[in-house]
Amino acid sequence: MARIRLGMVGGGKDALIGEVHRLGARLDGQFDLVAGALSSTPEKSLESGLALGLDPGRCYGSFAEMARAEAARPDGIEAVVIVTPNHVHAAAASAFLAEGIHVICDKPLAATMEQAGMLADAVQDSAALFILTHNYTAYPMIREARAMIARGDLGPLRVVQAEYAQDWLTRDSTGKQADWRGDPARAGIGGAVGDIGTHAFNLAGFVTGLRAEALSADLQSFVPGRRVDDNGHVMLRYGGGVRGMLWFSQVAVGCGNGLRLRVFGAEAGIEWSQEEPELLWYTRFGEPRQRLTRAGPGTGPAGLSRTPSGHPEGYIEAFANLYTEAAAAIRAARAGNGRDIGLLPGLKEGLEGMQFIAACVESSAQDGRWLPLDPVTAP
Amino acid sequence: MARIRLGMVGGGKDALIGEVHRLGARLDGQFDLVAGALSSTPEKSLESGLALGLDPGRCYGSFAEMARAEAARPDGIEAVVIVTPNHVHAAAASAFLAEGIHVICDKPLAATMEQAGMLADAVQDSAALFILTHNYTAYPMIREARAMIARGDLGPLRVVQAEYAQDWLTRDSTGKQADWRGDPARAGIGGAVGDIGTHAFNLAGFVTGLRAEALSADLQSFVPGRRVDDNGHVMLRYGGGVRGMLWFSQVAVGCGNGLRLRVFGAEAGIEWSQEEPELLWYTRFGEPRQRLTRAGPGTGPAGLSRTPSGHPEGYIEAFANLYTEAAAAIRAARAGNGRDIGLLPGLKEGLEGMQFIAACVESSAQDGRWLPLDPVTAP
Amino acid sequence: MARIRLGMVGGGKDALIGEVHRLGARLDGQFDLVAGALSSTPEKSLESGLALGLDPGRCYGSFAEMARAEAARPDGIEAVVIVTPNHVHAAAASAFLAEGIHVICDKPLAATMEQAGMLADAVQDSAALFILTHNYTAYPMIREARAMIARGDLGPLRVVQAEYAQDWLTRDSTGKQADWRGDPARAGIGGAVGDIGTHAFNLAGFVTGLRAEALSADLQSFVPGRRVDDNGHVMLRYGGGVRGMLWFSQVAVGCGNGLRLRVFGAEAGIEWSQEEPELLWYTRFGEPRQRLTRAGPGTGPAGLSRTPSGHPEGYIEAFANLYTEAAAAIRAARAGNGRDIGLLPGLKEGLEGMQFIAACVESSAQDGRWLPLDPVTAP
Amino acid sequence: MARIRLGMVGGGKDALIGEVHRLGARLDGQFDLVAGALSSTPEKSLESGLALGLDPGRCYGSFAEMARAEAARPDGIEAVVIVTPNHVHAAAASAFLAEGIHVICDKPLAATMEQAGMLADAVQDSAALFILTHNYTAYPMIREARAMIARGDLGPLRVVQAEYAQDWLTRDSTGKQADWRGDPARAGIGGAVGDIGTHAFNLAGFVTGLRAEALSADLQSFVPGRRVDDNGHVMLRYGGGVRGMLWFSQVAVGCGNGLRLRVFGAEAGIEWSQEEPELLWYTRFGEPRQRLTRAGPGTGPAGLSRTPSGHPEGYIEAFANLYTEAAAAIRAARAGNGRDIGLLPGLKEGLEGMQFIAACVESSAQDGRWLPLDPVTAP
Repeated sequence: MARIRLGMVGGGKDALIGEVHRLGARLDGQFDLVAGALSSTPEKSLESGLALGLDPGRCYGSFAEMARAEAARPDGIEAVVIVTPNHVHAAAASAFLAEGIHVICDKPLAATMEQAGMLADAVQDSAALFILTHNYTAYPMIREARAMIARGDLGPLRVVQAEYAQDWLTRDSTGKQADWRGDPARAGIGGAVGDIGTHAFNLAGFVTGLRAEALSADLQSFVPGRRVDDNGHVMLRYGGGVRGMLWFSQVAVGCGNGLRLRVFGAEAGIEWSQEEPELLWYTRFGEPRQRLTRAGPGTGPAGLSRTPSGHPEGYIEAFANLYTEAAAAIRAARAGNGRDIGLLPGLKEGLEGMQFIAACVESSAQDGRWLPLDPVTAP
Repeated sequence: MARIRLGMVGGGKDALIGEVHRLGARLDGQFDLVAGALSSTPEKSLESGLALGLDPGRCYGSFAEMARAEAARPDGIEAVVIVTPNHVHAAAASAFLAEGIHVICDKPLAATMEQAGMLADAVQDSAALFILTHNYTAYPMIREARAMIARGDLGPLRVVQAEYAQDWLTRDSTGKQADWRGDPARAGIGGAVGDIGTHAFNLAGFVTGLRAEALSADLQSFVPGRRVDDNGHVMLRYGGGVRGMLWFSQVAVGCGNGLRLRVFGAEAGIEWSQEEPELLWYTRFGEPRQRLTRAGPGTGPAGLSRTPSGHPEGYIEAFANLYTEAAAAIRAARAGNGRDIGLLPGLKEGLEGMQFIAACVESSAQDGRWLPLDPVTAP
Repeated sequence: MARIRLGMVGGGKDALIGEVHRLGARLDGQFDLVAGALSSTPEKSLESGLALGLDPGRCYGSFAEMARAEAARPDGIEAVVIVTPNHVHAAAASAFLAEGIHVICDKPLAATMEQAGMLADAVQDSAALFILTHNYTAYPMIREARAMIARGDLGPLRVVQAEYAQDWLTRDSTGKQADWRGDPARAGIGGAVGDIGTHAFNLAGFVTGLRAEALSADLQSFVPGRRVDDNGHVMLRYGGGVRGMLWFSQVAVGCGNGLRLRVFGAEAGIEWSQEEPELLWYTRFGEPRQRLTRAGPGTGPAGLSRTPSGHPEGYIEAFANLYTEAAAAIRAARAGNGRDIGLLPGLKEGLEGMQFIAACVESSAQDGRWLPLDPVTAP
Repeated sequence: MARIRLGMVGGGKDALIGEVHRLGARLDGQFDLVAGALSSTPEKSLESGLALGLDPGRCYGSFAEMARAEAARPDGIEAVVIVTPNHVHAAAASAFLAEGIHVICDKPLAATMEQAGMLADAVQDSAALFILTHNYTAYPMIREARAMIARGDLGPLRVVQAEYAQDWLTRDSTGKQADWRGDPARAGIGGAVGDIGTHAFNLAGFVTGLRAEALSADLQSFVPGRRVDDNGHVMLRYGGGVRGMLWFSQVAVGCGNGLRLRVFGAEAGIEWSQEEPELLWYTRFGEPRQRLTRAGPGTGPAGLSRTPSGHPEGYIEAFANLYTEAAAAIRAARAGNGRDIGLLPGLKEGLEGMQFIAACVESSAQDGRWLPLDPVTAP
């Protein structure tokens, strides 16, 4: 099978997440990166592209130019990855969708609700796929947890505890990563809530299969001069009477990339931590705690493993799982099978994330008033 | 030094916490248990007392009889432990305080605010000491954490995460322990919030030295037919802009006695878990995480250790620490040094706990409205 | 039931393990310490005894005097604890055994084989009990592990991995504890091998029910000037073709009190660590690892628990378990039930420990030659 | 930079480690797999090659044919990976070395000493590089540990504890992986000792920088009918008076891929476990234990990280590190910089591994006699 021709917007020198996407796309050999608008100026974009071995003629100065030019080539890209700051997501994705090029876009969906709406229209109007990289959903033990809950192993659910704690913004940081995340014009109205809160919120929904119906939030900005939140506490009401809490922080000293999820049902409970992603702790009421492992005894064939249990797979492999599923969806679309992206997150999850950010900010401004979260529809 | 003569109310056969109090009082050899009204009937009280080696003449049928009789003896008890269901605390404690007998009372302070007020008056009117057994405050690494925060090791505090998760009430339980805890007439208006939520709330205040000024709560009762809460989510606002979350649950399948506390400041963060009480994880911003241990390198002389680091001390030793400090306070009082109980929790902490329960129940009833917590004064 | 009258030899000021014995004896209320020869001079002995509240008339200047005087009293001690340096064990124990007083003796049995033989004769000639405080055998999860193996849960055993690693003698230490342990005249020919190697060796035998039939050892003394070993590696051959390794060290920087045991059979494996004594990791072949806890699901009624699962019990409680079983054995002996000490270690285990020390030193001197360990017989 | 053209011998369908090599070679984009003799028959080799997207004309029926044909092509492979059973390593590697093609070969070096000698000659006679995939040496925290020891952080070393425990051969297994490993004609005289013991032995030497000078071994074969060892215990004497123990097992129920290393010096100790490869526990004597993490505070720039601390990298990334260093060495060789392979393991480590296997088997046969390990010289 020929590899899928891939382009990238953003992800040039000094970028962080672009390289992770490239590693994820490369690991399973399903994609070839052949074009890019990697930086915000043509010069830097060319420099970054050459460092990655791109043809100089396919190192573009802007995403708009790139979308037009690649669409016109017989060997143009089939899919593009958008890894820019949030405020560029919608415009860039829309440009490629308009050309029928599949889009793999970083989260959150956009910096503003208006941008998100524009992007939703663009998805609606295109036959191409739109995939949102809520990458944590592609950890094998997260898939295992989802399957366990779906088949009823936990009994009726009751309580969800989610958190995502980091400490890298403990002080008044500067630098490429910190700068745009702290700028509402580029990041949107949410700081930590958009950057990592959405991940925890999405993961809780993915694993439980539940929709959050209302929330009450209390956001803070602890570092003087910071214009967006850097810590937030949220109470959640899910369908079926399930209750949840969610904490996100980028000022929690000692926490690296502490995404954690605990779910409790009437029959059993589970616990997972991103920093030990190969483990899922599972306890049935009245029985000893069990340590489930990827590809280990008691875990079903998740189809997302490359090595036997005990040979740690991690963050890059989870990204690669997402890319490999994206490749399968792209190949299926090419074969006329429509826009099914299976378990991959897409527009709907993106809109739900935007709604979560907006509701957290609004509830916090209204002294924690419970705000409803209406069902989102997406093509 | 002669041992202090101790009596006990409650704690007869089938009781749980009474035996723990006896172990704690016995370990360091500071007390002799010599009298009791251990059960609710004279027959069972006698039977329980004989099993403990008490003089049959000092096995009383009621706390009232015991208070009178012991006060009249030249060798009467100097202190009494109250380990009954909540609704008996206030009346029993008051009876002994009225006789000038020191009281060590289990938490929460009472089943109702009215009872709590009556008890506050009784403490006010007595020269005797009143000590409340928030036993978790007496773990050496909790004391270490408190000292670290007090001397500024964490910098200005920002975020407090507290939780106390158990699973023993996952189903509709019966039995002595479950029955009274589920009965508002005996437990009070709070279920899990009173039984364990107050512990987490108290511990967070003890370690941080902060007072909670307001809270927003969402309580649930998941098991059909249960009349009190079995799970609750609380957002907290402390003095100085510090924010907190608190979760308590008795339906969190897989959790044994999961009291956990995390505190983050501008310079450092700490993490402690009751099931591994000898450890305190400590991270200064930008430095590797450190594993501090009781009596180990980097931990000050807390004065509450019996063995070198690596020889696990636990729950009973923490109870014993509390009793040994109580013995010192009683001896000091006897010597005319007044009512200072040092770091031991007392009436003030008890009233704060009652206020916490009431505010959680009320806020939850008002859809999570933020309620203020007024400063408590106590003799 | 009246408490058992207990005396103590050794354990005065600055001693370490004597206080642990007193805590263990006190916790369950089965013993009263009423006499002692606590230090090596009459003055210090008196001072130490008064600090413990002993009657000055029962603070003796020597164990010999104490044995005679207590035996002559109608209210004399019924049992004595020997917590001196090793070279005093045999003489002291023998003096009390000769008077019919039960002996609870610290390990190893003696400093020399000759002393051990003398002590064995003294036990033989007495009707009194002799109990050796291999205290780690009294941890509830160690008892659980022993029961699991005994009933065949692990299938035929294959491999035993035992270790005991500390770091407190990493440097050329001085002080009461280090001094006598480093002096062959007081400690015997073994340093770490006697002090902690014997514990690991004993524990492996206790849990597996196997007898070591031969060993090959390589001992080292890393700190210049040290006269006994401070680290040692041992290969073991048990009955039934089972093989083992044992490591002990007092120079393993970062290890506190690291006694660990792993046992593997054809059907399952277990793992236990003294620093987390409430846990036993249990894996059946082809099934997820299970986390068994004291008094938790899946663990039988060991009879050695005081609190529910999740309320940590530790080192002192294990000592107390041993004392409480000793109290039962003493009461049974008093009632004419002979010298059965149940699961408690006694003379046989002491002689096996002496044999282990001697064989390790001898094998190491002979460049690791395998030496047989003959079966030990004891009254 | 153009990618390096890579071929593979072995690694066809049902193979395990071949796919891991391909993932490792692919992740960082330094190699293109373009040719293979992937299976033992031409038909299966073709089938496996096509599944990997190889040109059918470069799917060879044997390594000999492949070496000749590729050497003759102007676009022939520059390097080859050998991932066959052990007995094929030497002949295959020699064939490519003779053509001047760089060889990346799985360990152990060969099935017999004779084969190993032949391969050593082939390396000697070739200008091409020879790299042995002791992949665990390429974990970032292993490199960190090595650097710490090299710069003296631990002080003079004293004790090394290494182990590699698995359980997948607990029963009489069949299947492609188990079959050849249990067949002395294909695996060599060592079973577990060659398969995993060599990894632990190599890792201990790599991290400490020490050479083992003598060993005493006791090997077992627990499963009836098994013709090679499945468990072994080894005592080691390193240069400078350092002592070590090494345990390897494939019958340790509950162990997945349990490669662990602990090293103790006079000033500090470290601990690392392959199943948590991102962590290195580090304790300086008299200070709290520190948890060092890849790319985290306190760890130097190892140059082998792709993501920030807290985003787990694992086994595949370690393989990729090895491949990326191999690519650099190949490019340097191409540029005329000779045969320096930096920290990568090569022929010398391979010969040391063969010597280790032989000495373990021989020492065990001689009842654990200490056997010297002579220094190995390699081109």
